[in-house]
Amino acid sequence: MSLNNATPEALKQLEQTLTAEYESLKSQNLSLDLTRGKPSSEQLDLSDSLDGILDGEFIDSAGVDTRNYGGLRGIISARQLGADLLGTEVAQTMSVGNSSLNIMYMVMLNNYLYGCRGKDTAWGELKAPKMLCPVPGYDRHFSITENLGIEMINVDMDENGPDMDQVEALIKADSDIIGIWCVPKYSNPSGATYSDDVVDRIAALGKIANSSFRVMWDNAYAVHDLIEDFKQLANIFERCKAHGTEDSVWQFASTSKVTHAGSGISFLSSTEDNLKNFEKLLGVTTIGADKVNQLRTVKLLPNMDATYAHMAKHRAILAPKFDLVLTELNNELDSQYATWTKPEGGYFVSLDTQPNLAKTVIAMSSEAGVVLTGAGAPFPYGKDPKDCNIRIAPSFPPTNELKVALSVLIVCIKLATVRQVMS
Amino acid sequence: MSLNNATPEALKQLEQTLTAEYESLKSQNLSLDLTRGKPSSEQLDLSDSLDGILDGEFIDSAGVDTRNYGGLRGIISARQLGADLLGTEVAQTMSVGNSSLNIMYMVMLNNYLYGCRGKDTAWGELKAPKMLCPVPGYDRHFSITENLGIEMINVDMDENGPDMDQVEALIKADSDIIGIWCVPKYSNPSGATYSDDVVDRIAALGKIANSSFRVMWDNAYAVHDLIEDFKQLANIFERCKAHGTEDSVWQFASTSKVTHAGSGISFLSSTEDNLKNFEKLLGVTTIGADKVNQLRTVKLLPNMDATYAHMAKHRAILAPKFDLVLTELNNELDSQYATWTKPEGGYFVSLDTQPNLAKTVIAMSSEAGVVLTGAGAPFPYGKDPKDCNIRIAPSFPPTNELKVALSVLIVCIKLATVRQVMS
Repeated sequence: MSLNNATPEALKQLEQTLTAEYESLKSQNLSLDLTRGKPSSEQLDLSDSLDGILDGEFIDSAGVDTRNYGGLRGIISARQLGADLLGTEVAQTMSVGNSSLNIMYMVMLNNYLYGCRGKDTAWGELKAPKMLCPVPGYDRHFSITENLGIEMINVDMDENGPDMDQVEALIKADSDIIGIWCVPKYSNPSGATYSDDVVDRIAALGKIANSSFRVMWDNAYAVHDLIEDFKQLANIFERCKAHGTEDSVWQFASTSKVTHAGSGISFLSSTEDNLKNFEKLLGVTTIGADKVNQLRTVKLLPNMDATYAHMAKHRAILAPKFDLVLTELNNELDSQYATWTKPEGGYFVSLDTQPNLAKTVIAMSSEAGVVLTGAGAPFPYGKDPKDCNIRIAPSFPPTNELKVALSVLIVCIKLATVRQVMS
Repeated sequence: MSLNNATPEALKQLEQTLTAEYESLKSQNLSLDLTRGKPSSEQLDLSDSLDGILDGEFIDSAGVDTRNYGGLRGIISARQLGADLLGTEVAQTMSVGNSSLNIMYMVMLNNYLYGCRGKDTAWGELKAPKMLCPVPGYDRHFSITENLGIEMINVDMDENGPDMDQVEALIKADSDIIGIWCVPKYSNPSGATYSDDVVDRIAALGKIANSSFRVMWDNAYAVHDLIEDFKQLANIFERCKAHGTEDSVWQFASTSKVTHAGSGISFLSSTEDNLKNFEKLLGVTTIGADKVNQLRTVKLLPNMDATYAHMAKHRAILAPKFDLVLTELNNELDSQYATWTKPEGGYFVSLDTQPNLAKTVIAMSSEAGVVLTGAGAPFPYGKDPKDCNIRIAPSFPPTNELKVALSVLIVCIKLATVRQVMS
């Protein structure tokens, strides 16, 4: 039925039917959670052999006793895994602790307080440092940026990545733009993988931007494919070499959603000059990361073949959940109500309601016992300009719970939409 | 022989004998290291059961799946261990990652940039924030402080801890003094354990200092006793309650020199108001620490009895090394050459040469293949005002190497002293 052409009576009847459905779901006192991109316990089980995997052997391939202090760049085999994941060289890849978010914060802090090439390159010395934020994006990137007092500018995204015309025009117009956040593969939450052209244009930004400009390339979902025949992400490191802009990019990855989510190891890669500059701060704040856990991780994932084989097991668990989400949405909704992404990897389905309805839908779901990520979370300052985006995270709940949660979400979307058309 | 009363001929002959000994040691092409307080591999072996200790059980005592994201304060059993180590309450104790140094940095950064109670309490807003630094002290505390641009003021130490008359007078004279670094038990490097009176006077500082003043109480050697019948450190938390100054103290500890040095877990404790304020920053920079490793640690060390039993094994390895150092120094040197501490715990012997000789001795040792901590390292800005302090770290080398390294150090001290008397 076409909502716009429906008679007031038909709409009223639809509204009543949906309200009854909603009230019936509410009366079930559900308590379900679709908020965060957490692996399910079934996925975590895949890596349980980590504990005990060393079998008493704590010395790494280079003869380092991983149990003792030291080694700011991490053990060489873990750095190799990071380099392979990111498509960089081991010499310019570090392996650090369990939180890639933490290392992104530290890189941002270093550039803000101390500067990538001395105090007069510090972002904090600029009149109004600004960071470009493709939206919707990852809320925790935005929290770091806001926390440092760096202004955030929204940039539109489509299925090929950020709108590069916008990005280039903004940078040319304002030399206080000091960086851009990117989740280049299966972008959080839209699932977009940046096209080759977008990757190349991002690599070229170092030629038009402030010399302290940095691309924060968070390749969080580098191997998190939901289909076997996935789209390759272009290698930004290679593209930077072609443009002579290697200093302008910091790459990050982790095994957080590969092994155990709270106990992964993380990686960062950039040029030797950038790493040396960063280590001046990092070396003040820590003696080094947990190298025993790095060794465990490379025992489980000694190379990319092993990593892909491991990720295939994740896919077997995750893909049916994404299929369920897409099937339910397809069966129950059409573009009068919402549009949504069909991700080939990553952890989210990004759904857009009609304008001005996301907050309402999320509040209604919450009342019915289904918690969704807060409205606006995937936007700087928590402000979704159209109030339409809802991030669905299907990984954590078991399939039966996921199905119930989706039915609640769908009824809320329908009811809120119909009420808006009626008003 | 009394150097000051010796004839020039006698001194010359002594100098020649010592030079010959030194040259002979030099010709052995030694390569020994007494620099850092690292556990030996024998000590690290004591905790090798950590890997595999979970036996497939990753759920903690509170039902938390340690493998997944979340839990900024850490798992409850690890927090309990931290509270027991520090003599505080579990509710106000957090367990975090592998580096207590890192968490000290983060607390300092938070107080500096954001303030313990809002921006106008930020240390960075003060004209000239200053930190009191009992010396000799821990070089990495000083690096953090210098890195943040906080001025450091030396405070004298004796066997009872910092000179509290100095501390109180400095604080009363300057409201820009925002904190003091303390290693209250087996202070690094002097080995001093603060007396009850000193602990009480430190707890009372909150009554005379700036309200953003913080004691950074780094109880790094809380259970690192070299004798069985060790001196108890007074409970600063209790003393603060008596003075109503609970907000003025942050306590830190870790298992770095209890289990595996690079893979320990760390603890911080303060008031709920302080923790809440700190979590506003910490929660932006990480989703949480490695909880699996926290669970492993409490499996190995479920309570203080188990911890003391474990530390007794460390003692059995460490005490003979310290005995060797003290015996060699006693046999070969007297106060004409040097004075040194006789620690009952911790990781160092702190030795004072005659004034103006530490740099020379350290350089001579290095030439003979024995690396010592850089001269001045235990002082702010790396400047030992008397150029006399040498930190000896006997834990890492095997006993036979330690003995050779000491013989080199002793000859260097003798030779440098005699040459100075002659000049």
